Amino acid sequence: MPLNILIIGGVALGTKAATRARRIMPDANITLIDQGTYISYGGCGIPYFVGGEVSSVRGLRTTGANVIRDEAFFDDLKGVKAICHTRALSIDRKAKTVLVENVKTGEQSTMSYDKLVIATGARPIIPAIPGTDLKNVTAINGLEPAMAIEEQCAARQIKNAVILGTGFIGLEMGVALAKRGIKVTVIGNLSRFCRPFAQMARKDLEDFGITVVSGEKVVELKGQDGAVCQVVTDKQAIDADQVIISVGVKPNDKLAADAGLLCHPKGGIMVNSHMQTSDPDIYAGGDAVVVRNLISGDFIYLPLGSMANRQGRVIGCNLGGQQSVFEGAVGSWCVKMNKMYASGAGLTVQQAKEAGFDAVEVTMEGVDKAHFYPNHGVASICLVVDKQTRRVLGIQGMSADGSSIKARTDAVAAQMQIGKPTLNDISNLEVCYSPPFAGAMDVINAAANVTDNVISGLHDSISPDEFVKLWEDRANNNYYFVDIRPAKSSKPIEERHPGEYLSLPLEEFNARKGEVPTDRPVALVCNTGTRAYEAQIKLRNMGIKTVNSAGGFQALKKRGDDTKF
Amino acid sequence: MPLNILIIGGVALGTKAATRARRIMPDANITLIDQGTYISYGGCGIPYFVGGEVSSVRGLRTTGANVIRDEAFFDDLKGVKAICHTRALSIDRKAKTVLVENVKTGEQSTMSYDKLVIATGARPIIPAIPGTDLKNVTAINGLEPAMAIEEQCAARQIKNAVILGTGFIGLEMGVALAKRGIKVTVIGNLSRFCRPFAQMARKDLEDFGITVVSGEKVVELKGQDGAVCQVVTDKQAIDADQVIISVGVKPNDKLAADAGLLCHPKGGIMVNSHMQTSDPDIYAGGDAVVVRNLISGDFIYLPLGSMANRQGRVIGCNLGGQQSVFEGAVGSWCVKMNKMYASGAGLTVQQAKEAGFDAVEVTMEGVDKAHFYPNHGVASICLVVDKQTRRVLGIQGMSADGSSIKARTDAVAAQMQIGKPTLNDISNLEVCYSPPFAGAMDVINAAANVTDNVISGLHDSISPDEFVKLWEDRANNNYYFVDIRPAKSSKPIEERHPGEYLSLPLEEFNARKGEVPTDRPVALVCNTGTRAYEAQIKLRNMGIKTVNSAGGFQALKKRGDDTKF
Repeated sequence: MPLNILIIGGVALGTKAATRARRIMPDANITLIDQGTYISYGGCGIPYFVGGEVSSVRGLRTTGANVIRDEAFFDDLKGVKAICHTRALSIDRKAKTVLVENVKTGEQSTMSYDKLVIATGARPIIPAIPGTDLKNVTAINGLEPAMAIEEQCAARQIKNAVILGTGFIGLEMGVALAKRGIKVTVIGNLSRFCRPFAQMARKDLEDFGITVVSGEKVVELKGQDGAVCQVVTDKQAIDADQVIISVGVKPNDKLAADAGLLCHPKGGIMVNSHMQTSDPDIYAGGDAVVVRNLISGDFIYLPLGSMANRQGRVIGCNLGGQQSVFEGAVGSWCVKMNKMYASGAGLTVQQAKEAGFDAVEVTMEGVDKAHFYPNHGVASICLVVDKQTRRVLGIQGMSADGSSIKARTDAVAAQMQIGKPTLNDISNLEVCYSPPFAGAMDVINAAANVTDNVISGLHDSISPDEFVKLWEDRANNNYYFVDIRPAKSSKPIEERHPGEYLSLPLEEFNARKGEVPTDRPVALVCNTGTRAYEAQIKLRNMGIKTVNSAGGFQALKKRGDDTKF
Repeated sequence: MPLNILIIGGVALGTKAATRARRIMPDANITLIDQGTYISYGGCGIPYFVGGEVSSVRGLRTTGANVIRDEAFFDDLKGVKAICHTRALSIDRKAKTVLVENVKTGEQSTMSYDKLVIATGARPIIPAIPGTDLKNVTAINGLEPAMAIEEQCAARQIKNAVILGTGFIGLEMGVALAKRGIKVTVIGNLSRFCRPFAQMARKDLEDFGITVVSGEKVVELKGQDGAVCQVVTDKQAIDADQVIISVGVKPNDKLAADAGLLCHPKGGIMVNSHMQTSDPDIYAGGDAVVVRNLISGDFIYLPLGSMANRQGRVIGCNLGGQQSVFEGAVGSWCVKMNKMYASGAGLTVQQAKEAGFDAVEVTMEGVDKAHFYPNHGVASICLVVDKQTRRVLGIQGMSADGSSIKARTDAVAAQMQIGKPTLNDISNLEVCYSPPFAGAMDVINAAANVTDNVISGLHDSISPDEFVKLWEDRANNNYYFVDIRPAKSSKPIEERHPGEYLSLPLEEFNARKGEVPTDRPVALVCNTGTRAYEAQIKLRNMGIKTVNSAGGFQALKKRGDDTKF
């Protein structure tokens, strides 16, 4: 008797599990049901379809050879019986059947299985405020709403769009709509970013004309003639003829929970490393499950298309009797904003502290190619480290070169995934080197070294926002500011602020070090933080206590703070 | 008494060790000697200076703030007494002194040390053939010969240059000279690349007008009026008014060996994981030492500027009493050629077999961003894997996007450095994903999956050169060729070769599968190898044995073989 495999849900994980299983099991009966019209589409591409980079929604539905991935495609080419518009209502684990309903006709029937895969995905979280049911309030949870928004863009029906939420999809949709000439406001705290990078992300969006509203609570969506017209926060009302809700998703785990399968109290089906639920004949994955956080050991909910694809293959292998494992995740992510690309993996310093680590975060700026090589860029790196063990718990990066910042993040993520890298490991991380690719001391090695110096107390580093605060409060705190950059950059500021700000290029340091007052606290700054660190050591040896602005003016500039001096 | 530190050699490792030691030891006496005129220069940038990307040699000698790194710079700014034109002749380990000679005056003196660092680097290997002492035969072993070549380029004195050796510097110098309008011939076997990629590298160089001569042995350099005029191989004579010798370097370990320090029989000072020689008061690193190969466990000689910088910091830390370690290396590398960038880490299949592994190499082609995202590229990946344990032993990549191929290589290298990743680990490698950065199933995950399928026998893959051989020998071997690409690409070939070559797009496969002969062996090809793999499984289920050309026409095109069909 051929094995009878039933898969519920056909976007990413379901189709991948189905096709992998088919390739290793020529004789199995493989059926995939989905409640929607579209299956196997690239949902992550929606913002690029709305923004215009992907010219047609067809592009999100086709293979690399431009063939639509619809029911006929799976039926004929993949040998998978795909049935759309069919919703699973309940699972009878004893009888090994699933009660399903045709969502068009309401007709119900049962489907039997030997092995079942639950790939029910996630649904958008809708905030509990009035007005979310108004017209033109949308959660982009599939191709239909994306197409509707794109049509409105094309018809120039949207003038003011408000995005609720600053998750990655929210940011991508904000940029996409701004590209279509729409006035965009994004409301949220950019809390996916480490604190120093959140301001850089804000600046990058603002440079594109996007308004970023943080620290406000949305209390109501107001309507006119049934359509949204305003987003009201606790501090202001913002005109809006389109509101996109992007405050996160939650797993569709009810079908599993109702069948008595173990689910996490906060939501999400529990699976073992073979992606099996508490019933070994039922697998689950993708946006419907929680996985193990390989750093904290806790469970983590990571709804990501890439995760779903990888887990889908693991399930497909295991359906075929192989022993494929998915150990867990470190939570790698990346996002393209306006001109900047950001990426990260592992824990933020807040998450690390909550997980019980004695964690610090250290940021730095460094060149991503040899500094003499043309077109090198300056990348921002943030490492999160446990002070006691020097274990690296997280990384974030931000750069105008996406692949370059991805390379550094992926390398650290790769080590966090397979081991417990320390600062020494990252200091010696053997990344590929030649001048068109990296500096001889790569920025990721340098980031580990900076962090090592900070933790060991050799480098008294403060964050750029702390530096700006010191500057703005200088009338009260008596801080004296010393700029280690060449005179061309530092002298004009000194001239604007005599007695408060000294231009002292590193090359002139030894000759002019007597100009630094010994009776005031000193705040240092240079271009990237490196040369001010050298000055800091010299001043420390002179008995002067200093702080150094992490990332120097490169970081200040990315934050839009450079003009404050 | 302050610690007395003496460092012999001041290019990469020496200066890094010195400055790190200074920062953590304000009171130590740190002296650095070097036999040359220039110290702390970016030697890896020489090809980019010769090629014109770096406009002046000054660029290779300055800091990011455009300050020359000379003796005065180290003296004044870094607190390191730097002395050029001073060669170390011998070490008296009992007396803890070094006999040195001023290379300009011949004057000798002794310098004492508490801790000594040997950073003597490497020297070029000069082949044992007649004529290497002729004028205009150069080994680029420092800034002086680089400047001389650049001057000759500027004065248009070079018409025909021959590079002996296809190591990375040889390739980079070949491209650099071709950029200057010089006719360039490179002689060597491109053996740094895995076999399938060597032909891609050759094609890329040839597209730039560079002649690549392989499989020939250089027997003599012929001269006229004392200057080189011809390179003579066992098969031809090539006109040359400039010859660059780039067949590798060997460690300058004589000073250490003469002092009784343990050296490897094949050359290179032996060090422990603290970078200490067999005398704990003497450290060594950079191009002068061998390190542990973290994959094979053997010793390996890896002369690389990045390695030297990282080791330099380890030594600097340890001089200051810290416990910094350098465990070894996996041999990451990268090189920019004409339009293509290549990178790699770990063992080639030959090296793996020599190290006792039951190794295979599998190549594939895959998109490096979401296939619907504009400007995605197709990357070539090669994995070397132990068949028994599925441990990943090596990776190579080739792509027109340098940072993108670096990202994939660095991630695998990072895991090989800290653990023993298997195919399952790389299949689940959690690289950052969103459409502008990667595909939902990243090309590196896909590479692991392809390799898994090949090893498990699900995918009968042959290399592109094997496929081309089958095609060229089709009159004898009776192979039938089936092209799974869309008709637009495959039909024209079928029309040129009726009865031998069938255009059978995957979409039409099920309807037309009867056209595939069952009495002949079948060779499959598609665009990247993926769809022909699907066809292969279907044909296998029909009882037909097939082989599939790895990487499809994408690989054939990168090799220049696509026009043979």
